Amino acid sequence: MNGRHIEILLVEDNAEDVELTLRTLQREKLAHSIHVVRDGEEALDFLFCRGDYASRSFDSPPRLVLLDLKLPKVNGLDVLKQLKADLRTRPIPIVILTSSREERDLIQGYGNGANSYIQKPVDFDQFRDTVKKAGFYWLWINQQPLAVHAA
Amino acid sequence: MNGRHIEILLVEDNAEDVELTLRTLQREKLAHSIHVVRDGEEALDFLFCRGDYASRSFDSPPRLVLLDLKLPKVNGLDVLKQLKADLRTRPIPIVILTSSREERDLIQGYGNGANSYIQKPVDFDQFRDTVKKAGFYWLWINQQPLAVHAA
Repeated sequence: MNGRHIEILLVEDNAEDVELTLRTLQREKLAHSIHVVRDGEEALDFLFCRGDYASRSFDSPPRLVLLDLKLPKVNGLDVLKQLKADLRTRPIPIVILTSSREERDLIQGYGNGANSYIQKPVDFDQFRDTVKKAGFYWLWINQQPLAVHAA
Repeated sequence: MNGRHIEILLVEDNAEDVELTLRTLQREKLAHSIHVVRDGEEALDFLFCRGDYASRSFDSPPRLVLLDLKLPKVNGLDVLKQLKADLRTRPIPIVILTSSREERDLIQGYGNGANSYIQKPVDFDQFRDTVKKAGFYWLWINQQPLAVHAA
């Protein structure tokens, strides 16, 4: 991990899941900041630095996107497709974090370039443990290019 | 994790790295078996169930591929490209595990669909810890479709 500001984008519309994920990530101090968006359209605006996020830069992408599948406006799979189709956003790790246990979602998730797929555990402690381990892996073990936009 | 046989494919030509990675994964009992191939051509034969591996089936893919970049015969990036271009092998998690710290390799790795990129730590203990955590994440936290070939 380099000295840059470490940010996670959480794309989740379920208030309880947002709360639990946020609390876990904050307690583990895995990132400097965690930005939450509640629909797919805002996720795309954030990652493509447009609309309300036009002042953001492709030079400072989030280090990790935790992406729910069932989202208002633009669903998670469509968000994923657009991110992985663009060389500027392709290197950003996208981890699907969903309650779906459907084989079809797994296949489509990987088919559209998800880096990883995690089924949210129903149990509260397991959920926390999973988020913690995923955060740790993607922020401390996994490496990302310094200049994502140069891809 | 389901009850199926859990296999890791390690694609690595450096004997010391093979030894260290194998010992770590075996000690942690993360998989039932670890298959080692030492060049890119054999990795492709293994994953596409052909040549010496014609008796393998797409129904039983490895749960994780640890892929070095500098490999004899077919280099790691070309192996990656072929695996991610084929719907039968696309859902298999491919983690690049390399000593390369070159920005270009990171960008090309993600550009060609690597699920994750890990730079091998030079320090022995750190190397072991990294392999252990990566193995744990991909085998216990990450989910894969049951029927990869159905993709």
